[in-house]
Amino acid sequence: MTPDEFRAAAHELVDWIADRRADVESRPVRPNVVPGEISAQLPTTPPAVPVDAREVLSDLDGIVAPGVTEVQHPMHFGWFPSNASLSSVLGDFASSGLGSLGISWESSPALTEVEEVVVDWLRQLTGLDAGWHGVIQDTASSACLVAMLAARERATDHLQTTTGLGGLDQPLCVYTTSEAHSSVRKAALLAGFGADFIRLIDVDPTTRDMRADALAAAIAADRAADRRPTIVVASAGSTGTTAFDPIDEIVAVSAPQGVWVHVDAAMAGSALVLPEMRHLFDGLEGADSLSWNPHKWFGTILDCSLMYLRDPDHLIRVMSTNPSYLRSTAGGEATQYRDWGIPLGRRFRALKLWYQLRIDGIEAIRTRLRRDLDNAQWLAEQFRLLPEWEVVAPVRLQTVCVRHRPDGLDGDDLDTHTLDWVRRVNTSGSAFLSPSMLDDRWMVRVSVGVESTERRHLERLLELLSTATSPRS
Amino acid sequence: MTPDEFRAAAHELVDWIADRRADVESRPVRPNVVPGEISAQLPTTPPAVPVDAREVLSDLDGIVAPGVTEVQHPMHFGWFPSNASLSSVLGDFASSGLGSLGISWESSPALTEVEEVVVDWLRQLTGLDAGWHGVIQDTASSACLVAMLAARERATDHLQTTTGLGGLDQPLCVYTTSEAHSSVRKAALLAGFGADFIRLIDVDPTTRDMRADALAAAIAADRAADRRPTIVVASAGSTGTTAFDPIDEIVAVSAPQGVWVHVDAAMAGSALVLPEMRHLFDGLEGADSLSWNPHKWFGTILDCSLMYLRDPDHLIRVMSTNPSYLRSTAGGEATQYRDWGIPLGRRFRALKLWYQLRIDGIEAIRTRLRRDLDNAQWLAEQFRLLPEWEVVAPVRLQTVCVRHRPDGLDGDDLDTHTLDWVRRVNTSGSAFLSPSMLDDRWMVRVSVGVESTERRHLERLLELLSTATSPRS
Repeated sequence: MTPDEFRAAAHELVDWIADRRADVESRPVRPNVVPGEISAQLPTTPPAVPVDAREVLSDLDGIVAPGVTEVQHPMHFGWFPSNASLSSVLGDFASSGLGSLGISWESSPALTEVEEVVVDWLRQLTGLDAGWHGVIQDTASSACLVAMLAARERATDHLQTTTGLGGLDQPLCVYTTSEAHSSVRKAALLAGFGADFIRLIDVDPTTRDMRADALAAAIAADRAADRRPTIVVASAGSTGTTAFDPIDEIVAVSAPQGVWVHVDAAMAGSALVLPEMRHLFDGLEGADSLSWNPHKWFGTILDCSLMYLRDPDHLIRVMSTNPSYLRSTAGGEATQYRDWGIPLGRRFRALKLWYQLRIDGIEAIRTRLRRDLDNAQWLAEQFRLLPEWEVVAPVRLQTVCVRHRPDGLDGDDLDTHTLDWVRRVNTSGSAFLSPSMLDDRWMVRVSVGVESTERRHLERLLELLSTATSPRS
Repeated sequence: MTPDEFRAAAHELVDWIADRRADVESRPVRPNVVPGEISAQLPTTPPAVPVDAREVLSDLDGIVAPGVTEVQHPMHFGWFPSNASLSSVLGDFASSGLGSLGISWESSPALTEVEEVVVDWLRQLTGLDAGWHGVIQDTASSACLVAMLAARERATDHLQTTTGLGGLDQPLCVYTTSEAHSSVRKAALLAGFGADFIRLIDVDPTTRDMRADALAAAIAADRAADRRPTIVVASAGSTGTTAFDPIDEIVAVSAPQGVWVHVDAAMAGSALVLPEMRHLFDGLEGADSLSWNPHKWFGTILDCSLMYLRDPDHLIRVMSTNPSYLRSTAGGEATQYRDWGIPLGRRFRALKLWYQLRIDGIEAIRTRLRRDLDNAQWLAEQFRLLPEWEVVAPVRLQTVCVRHRPDGLDGDDLDTHTLDWVRRVNTSGSAFLSPSMLDDRWMVRVSVGVESTERRHLERLLELLSTATSPRS
């Protein structure tokens, strides 16, 4: 494809994208498709002859786009917001357009240095002191695995450089709670800790926050049994109910024992830019690592997860390779981000954050986040005023967890009812909500925070829920 | 940023990108910058007030772009080609524009299903049988780690679900060669195998290919010493000299012993689409996993690494999590790609492959790859005809490894001379080449294969090298 063919096709695509975003509200939130329905519309064998870009755009419009769940839709309340602010989409275009390669400082000095600058801007905006050093990972899942590996090697004095984990003289223990994201367990397993040594620490029954006294007891018990406490993963805003493990208390228990503290703030980290919400993260300064995803509520298009570390030199020692074909003529002073994570080749992800911060500006982002916090409190208040509805977890941020319980419905009947009404809402295409488990029973999360969601959308949601839960629906 | 503001700014950006690609040859290949020079041009504190997109584009043009190594430049012969065909850039735009979220089938059915279709197209185009099942990973580094983890859990009957690696009764051994990519060692260390149990199998002194007899002996020695041979990573096209480990012989040695065979064809996998080159991969059918990067020579913009597995169900068992908040109403028949790798959230990467294959067409891609193979052979022939030049490794594909050795120069003097002339070339901005080690001495890799590189660029390179190596330069 020549630059001029690209130019013509890209202009058409840009218009299609802008139009599509402008009328997102006219479409269903969730496509009404069953598994295999999209792929059945595509040829099973590879294309034999090239086609004009316009034909591909036509299929994008007619086959692909109708099969996408519209997470930019104002009536999307599922999972967590996955905002792709158009300013960050523009930055992503710039990254793709540059077509540069991040395998070393030398392979794209700007890729490395803009990343250094932008992650430091975000450090300042989130109130982290200058002793934190940042990098962009793809996701919080990967960041959690990186933290686990770093903690593992710190606890074993770099056992990977000799016998590996098979040479362990004591099992290594991981501490988190039942509320932690599934990626925490996954990371612990992949890092080789073993499921037997993942400790799910008790949580406060109301807030679902980790109990630091229970953590202290678990660490002490493992020490007494000749096991090595290695890492605590604190959830700052859990996926289920936005629980906030008490970082200050966790650090107080863990740091003196040399236990690594990783703070998983994948979703809630966006709130770090709001000074009035900073108290939820008290104690963060004492942690070893932190990750949060601008690609969620904050609005930077996926994938963009910020990871900050207190001691990047330790991580570099765990991750670094220095093959002759990548040796830099730039000498030791250049940052080599390949040694801060798993993949060698990295995209120019910093541009999407750079574009977003410069074009939207942090104050507009803050205003939007505050709107969502207000909306969530307002929504929770409406549920509390309605008969038969229960808000089943504290609304710490922008997620409201509810159950509809007519006539004191309970047990399996309540579960059936919950899954029934949420399915009715979701299949209608008018709104999308995520059911989730709480105390082994289903509840429904209303995760407020899509960029385009205003109060009127919450009002419409309440109407939809009223219909979906009514006996006649 | 509103859709209309985005539309206007994106149109300008598209023109900038098309112009920039059209005149790539007018710029230096490598920017003449030192570490810190780009970041020094950016504010150290976050932007306080929003600016117009045009101002950001101006800084992209004036500060960022001049700090990018132009890997799309026809005189770029460094590392490996990192082609970003404009058709795939367009597909990347479509992905960014859709702003969709890949955390489950339900979060974007089209994201999952287009990926299934496109990786199967590539399976067919690369002559893999229908028993291979594919997924897009970010990089071959990650794919290698995923293979290591899968092999580890197969060898230990899923020890991660109980005691983890600490409960091993035998050390687990990894086999590869000194020529393997640095990410292989990194993956082995991160997966917990331990450096003591990474075996670098002898290579043929001329081809640098793994010797299967040496592999067999190493496996036998480890078994005799009560260690567990777990995984062989075969390099199909090594980074240094494009060595091809003999997959058929490696499979013959490994498979009967239950040793996992992972084929790392990161660069050379592109050649799988050429039937006449397929012999380099003989035996592939017997491997357990394969990865190769369309984001290299093939032309799909970074990041796009294809990974194929014989037994994805095993991988899913190693990687899967099924938290309540991600449970699908689609039932078990939908593919959940989150269980095929490390990150939960995934971009819609399949679109860039879909666009490229449909717009460029496979025949044009094949023609380009064949042009590069011809060019590399032609270039090697020129070096062979020139006095003082040596081609120091067989030219198996598109990389030509050379030394300039005037007056029988040897030892440290030869190293000094090599690094001198390659530095002169690279700092000139006229071409870019990667020095690399071979037999503990520096040589220079001329990696042919940028989309825009024609014969005339090789002719120019030869002139540049003549000047750079002349005593007076």
